[in-house]
Amino acid sequence: MKVTISRKAHFNAAHRLFVKSWDDTKNESIFGKCANPHYHGHNYELIVSVTGEIDPETGYVMDMKVLKDLIKSEVEDAFDHKNLNLQVPDFFDLNPTAENISVVIYNKLVKHLDKDKTIEVVLYETPRNFVKYSG
Amino acid sequence: MKVTISRKAHFNAAHRLFVKSWDDTKNESIFGKCANPHYHGHNYELIVSVTGEIDPETGYVMDMKVLKDLIKSEVEDAFDHKNLNLQVPDFFDLNPTAENISVVIYNKLVKHLDKDKTIEVVLYETPRNFVKYSG
Amino acid sequence: MKVTISRKAHFNAAHRLFVKSWDDTKNESIFGKCANPHYHGHNYELIVSVTGEIDPETGYVMDMKVLKDLIKSEVEDAFDHKNLNLQVPDFFDLNPTAENISVVIYNKLVKHLDKDKTIEVVLYETPRNFVKYSG
Amino acid sequence: MKVTISRKAHFNAAHRLFVKSWDDTKNESIFGKCANPHYHGHNYELIVSVTGEIDPETGYVMDMKVLKDLIKSEVEDAFDHKNLNLQVPDFFDLNPTAENISVVIYNKLVKHLDKDKTIEVVLYETPRNFVKYSG
Amino acid sequence: MKVTISRKAHFNAAHRLFVKSWDDTKNESIFGKCANPHYHGHNYELIVSVTGEIDPETGYVMDMKVLKDLIKSEVEDAFDHKNLNLQVPDFFDLNPTAENISVVIYNKLVKHLDKDKTIEVVLYETPRNFVKYSG
Amino acid sequence: MKVTISRKAHFNAAHRLFVKSWDDTKNESIFGKCANPHYHGHNYELIVSVTGEIDPETGYVMDMKVLKDLIKSEVEDAFDHKNLNLQVPDFFDLNPTAENISVVIYNKLVKHLDKDKTIEVVLYETPRNFVKYSG
Repeated sequence: MKVTISRKAHFNAAHRLFVKSWDDTKNESIFGKCANPHYHGHNYELIVSVTGEIDPETGYVMDMKVLKDLIKSEVEDAFDHKNLNLQVPDFFDLNPTAENISVVIYNKLVKHLDKDKTIEVVLYETPRNFVKYSG
Repeated sequence: MKVTISRKAHFNAAHRLFVKSWDDTKNESIFGKCANPHYHGHNYELIVSVTGEIDPETGYVMDMKVLKDLIKSEVEDAFDHKNLNLQVPDFFDLNPTAENISVVIYNKLVKHLDKDKTIEVVLYETPRNFVKYSG
Repeated sequence: MKVTISRKAHFNAAHRLFVKSWDDTKNESIFGKCANPHYHGHNYELIVSVTGEIDPETGYVMDMKVLKDLIKSEVEDAFDHKNLNLQVPDFFDLNPTAENISVVIYNKLVKHLDKDKTIEVVLYETPRNFVKYSG
Repeated sequence: MKVTISRKAHFNAAHRLFVKSWDDTKNESIFGKCANPHYHGHNYELIVSVTGEIDPETGYVMDMKVLKDLIKSEVEDAFDHKNLNLQVPDFFDLNPTAENISVVIYNKLVKHLDKDKTIEVVLYETPRNFVKYSG
Repeated sequence: MKVTISRKAHFNAAHRLFVKSWDDTKNESIFGKCANPHYHGHNYELIVSVTGEIDPETGYVMDMKVLKDLIKSEVEDAFDHKNLNLQVPDFFDLNPTAENISVVIYNKLVKHLDKDKTIEVVLYETPRNFVKYSG
Repeated sequence: MKVTISRKAHFNAAHRLFVKSWDDTKNESIFGKCANPHYHGHNYELIVSVTGEIDPETGYVMDMKVLKDLIKSEVEDAFDHKNLNLQVPDFFDLNPTAENISVVIYNKLVKHLDKDKTIEVVLYETPRNFVKYSG
């Protein structure tokens, strides 16, 4: 019996979208206001889902508190109240679009989970824009 | 690396549910209050999701602004503040259930997307009732 | 010790905004898309708040179930799945703006409450537009 | 054309998490505050989704009111304002984790649905913790 | 310049509503399912608001982190994952209605705030039922 | 008959909290992670409420579209996707706390409203932290 458990978390961060090899005009034509060189920011809402078998003794797929603590140590502590472009090494050479952030979060978390479990990351950049990545 | 991006939109519309070939008694027995001949209405909340590869240069699956504008021109401009039965040709001969509306929206959008992308439409008729269609 | 208790409810309805003595051009210039003669509609979300003393024996200001039933009989049964302009007598000669609907709801409810209590009506026409009336 | 329809419902209940064959110390080490022998509780939010073909005549996959009534009779009437451990037989010998509750709800509902339909249960234990089960 | 700052928090608890001097029949007639002797429970959502002058140097009415920590130590640590009737002394002789819980929370918090500030407590017992108390 | 109408809007921005005359150590001791010199950011959700008499002819306190456009031109166009400290002159010499931002927004809007109306600004910095200012 495979069940998916999900945990919501959040972090607030500044970022800008741009391609280093492009000039300002091209960056603004592609990324619009998101290319603002002085940065803007978001309250990112994150949902991490883990799918696996229910342990017949505990009734847990995974202890939600363990998942919560893992998200805190791997994602919230690394990203919260940070400038993603300047202070988070994952984005020194990677444009911090919501798509790329979701892949980075997935990769940070998947290595801490048992191999018989699969995970999915949903990341809300705003209440109206969100992305999903599951490997 | 396939990622799904999602965009929320909304429109307000009037409709009634009925089958033209049925009489009022049968329509009311099947559709209840929704068959009211004088119409009722909803704030429809719409989530359109597009799945595809991340462009390695921009970090985008698709520019969210392009998706937003597409939803506006194809769905919001066509449905918002309209009577679906009387003013939207798609429903002149099709009962505007949430299921049918989601299929119509899917068909309007899919033809504007690249063939290597797939889409899914989620439509909330009320905060407690919603439907999903992905082709 | 005065406490305020609040109960959420909802109804779905069709309406149009227009002043009977104005012609179509003037109505559309003032009410825009809301003047559509074929109607549009909303999921109205309603919050009714009642302020009064806590009963020292029960710990209730008022039984929330009594308030819920009152909102059902006075508001939901009268408005839900209706065309406000055509089927609700309160709006035969009153433009069903959110402001006017909130006043009508207030007047329907206040007469059923004890004189030592005050009430407030909050009405969401959409998740982004709402009104408040308290007499 | 397969479409998924979803309906939200809710119930409030008390529960505690523990394994009968373990002593208090072990239960508290695994389940933390959730093992409190005096119980705690939740507002459970439930989303039941049914996937099937659209009926070409009605435009329905399934009448949402039938689904709503089924959830009420099978789940809400059985669980609402109850102590899951003491008053709901399904959990007399099954730890009422969110995972196990979702499986029990799935099993209660699936037997009432046509064989050509599939269902999925999403259960929010809190706004930040939820689970999903689809058989 | 007086501004109000607000902070949301939450706790999960079990309770039952009853008056000790009444018999079961009377308690059930007044409190319905809420009188269940085996308890039920809720995810309580709490909003604490503090009104005061903006400090011209910091731009704060009060450090939101101080308010968050105060709510944690005074309310969350005392109520979360508890049985209010059996484990929280404030309710040993007081019926834990939402109204009474809001007054208790107010009294716990107000004594820790500067005299030039006023506070208001909003407590959601469910997403549809909530109360407000401000002294 | 005075009614309050409310309109929700939003903007995304970067900021940092600090007092210019303090050194980094003091700023970090007071503002914590919010003092990060590289900025962080938020999705600010804004609710502007206007209270006034209902116009007996239109049934409006004020055209919600006029209010929406006013918020767009005065607030969203000025703040959205900006760095508040570096690009919004109101905050060149004013710490952009939620409290101060709400006062700035109030002052920008109030001068465009009729003198017989009053306004209130609610600003969510995160879903859990918000402020209110009404002059």
